[in-house]
Amino acid sequence: MTSDGLDIEAIRSAHDLIRERIRRTPVMTSTTLDAMAGAKLFFKCENFQKTGAFKARGATHAVFRLTDAEAARGVATQSSGNHGAALARAAGMRGIPAFVVMPRSAPRAKKASVERFGGRIVLCEPTLEARDAAAARVVSETGAAFVHPNNDLRVMAGQGTAAVELLEDVPDLDLILCPVGGGGLLAGTAVAAKSMRPGIRVVGVEPAGADDASRSFAAGRRLPSDHPKSIADGLLAGLGDLTFPIIRDRVDDIVTVSEAAIVAAMQRIWEIMKIVVEPSAAVSYAALVGGAIKPAGMRVGIILTGGNVDLDSLPWMDPAARKA
Amino acid sequence: MTSDGLDIEAIRSAHDLIRERIRRTPVMTSTTLDAMAGAKLFFKCENFQKTGAFKARGATHAVFRLTDAEAARGVATQSSGNHGAALARAAGMRGIPAFVVMPRSAPRAKKASVERFGGRIVLCEPTLEARDAAAARVVSETGAAFVHPNNDLRVMAGQGTAAVELLEDVPDLDLILCPVGGGGLLAGTAVAAKSMRPGIRVVGVEPAGADDASRSFAAGRRLPSDHPKSIADGLLAGLGDLTFPIIRDRVDDIVTVSEAAIVAAMQRIWEIMKIVVEPSAAVSYAALVGGAIKPAGMRVGIILTGGNVDLDSLPWMDPAARKA
Repeated sequence: MTSDGLDIEAIRSAHDLIRERIRRTPVMTSTTLDAMAGAKLFFKCENFQKTGAFKARGATHAVFRLTDAEAARGVATQSSGNHGAALARAAGMRGIPAFVVMPRSAPRAKKASVERFGGRIVLCEPTLEARDAAAARVVSETGAAFVHPNNDLRVMAGQGTAAVELLEDVPDLDLILCPVGGGGLLAGTAVAAKSMRPGIRVVGVEPAGADDASRSFAAGRRLPSDHPKSIADGLLAGLGDLTFPIIRDRVDDIVTVSEAAIVAAMQRIWEIMKIVVEPSAAVSYAALVGGAIKPAGMRVGIILTGGNVDLDSLPWMDPAARKA
Repeated sequence: MTSDGLDIEAIRSAHDLIRERIRRTPVMTSTTLDAMAGAKLFFKCENFQKTGAFKARGATHAVFRLTDAEAARGVATQSSGNHGAALARAAGMRGIPAFVVMPRSAPRAKKASVERFGGRIVLCEPTLEARDAAAARVVSETGAAFVHPNNDLRVMAGQGTAAVELLEDVPDLDLILCPVGGGGLLAGTAVAAKSMRPGIRVVGVEPAGADDASRSFAAGRRLPSDHPKSIADGLLAGLGDLTFPIIRDRVDDIVTVSEAAIVAAMQRIWEIMKIVVEPSAAVSYAALVGGAIKPAGMRVGIILTGGNVDLDSLPWMDPAARKA
């Protein structure tokens, strides 16, 4: 590994370890969305990934990298849901328990997904502090190996495999857009993409209401958000001490998008592409919908990160008509 | 062609004519849905087809089969929407107008789709009689060539190309499930499948509230429904004098499914497969969800016919919470 701890060899090694345990997701295109953008868009559909999100990549890598001794008492994490389900699935494949700390406010579909894969849910209050405390308690009580959702080199290496596949399928991209929350996917994507195609631009996209990554990127040091808030519930986490330096050094830019752009992007993907993506997944495309990125004539890779959404309550519906 | 007017050569010829003008849709699988069914399911994703439905196949074939003289004054049809959009798109590619008679009650998304492809909408009351009358008037006024949504040998040949692709991709299917409304897709599917794989079973599935096909199949003669009613609005049409004899002679069985099974099937496809399908498309899978078909151990092809749905009003939401 390089001085910042993550390089293409680590990502390729992760790919070799997880390849048979995850799905190679398709890259989809749409002539309608291309015409709207004035660009050629290539959507990497991680909503079709096992467990419904790219998180299966990093979690599976982390679990299968553990020695037998490390794995013996199981794994634990705190997660808004997708990483938890992914860790539960990977642990199940290895025959060990997974303890998943989740906020009470997590969407029904995400809790159900963790349970479907055999994870043991530990509920906590919906604050970052409460999550950290609950996770520390679970680890001390069970002796499980902690696998952080993003600030973990094994997880970042696993997440980078999505960009490897995207560039294997579409080598001549000019730009990759990637959502950023805790930064695991963006760090892995930047390292993979810049190594495989040095001239490519890698841009992170985050909700304006959870903009610690763009502020930190501009300042050159980590500036956490106090009360991040966005419909993109998978992107509320802040950058960590391992993800931030990689993003600072390898990413070209980070832009923010409004809640309205996220909802419009999500709705357009459902309506035109006929696929289900969650708000966090629509954030990278929202940078085009909202005009934060103008990719005229470019070949743009867009990572659609997941499809786990509560189908009973869709954000473009009249709020008065939505269930509580 | 054979005595009943449709054979595999006609379908292969249609495929050659439309191949570059439509999308070759993927066949998707889901280990979760396989486990639920106790079978291996192969979903032919015509929701990803151009215009969002398999109708692009038959309409494109019909439009490009016309002689220049026949095409000169455009084409016309009556359609609940998907055939209309498909005909509009095909006509646009050929540079001729398309007149589309639609019921006022058609979903917003379907009207928008016809307009997006340049079709000229003629609204009528939502009865089969009103549609027929409006269509006849449009044809007499414009001189356009009428292309019926299903009771047309060119259309049936085009629809059969979906089964050709499905069996090219997955040759060893035991069973194909196919929704039936007017019967164009089922007729084309049965002729293609039985020719390519003589031992295969082909079963039509229709809503219990629009069950003319199953009653007609059992009786051996056409028995139209008086007031068909189903959330599967694409399947309200009855069998025609051209589709019925082919279905009677080539299809193994026709089963019906409840509205609840259709909604449950649609929701499960969205939630597990992360794809958008309309109610009419979920009908074939509903035969498994509702238990009408028990495919234990079989390899089952399921044609998901379309994905054009009004995203503002989803059928599993609390009716009191839905918009009017």
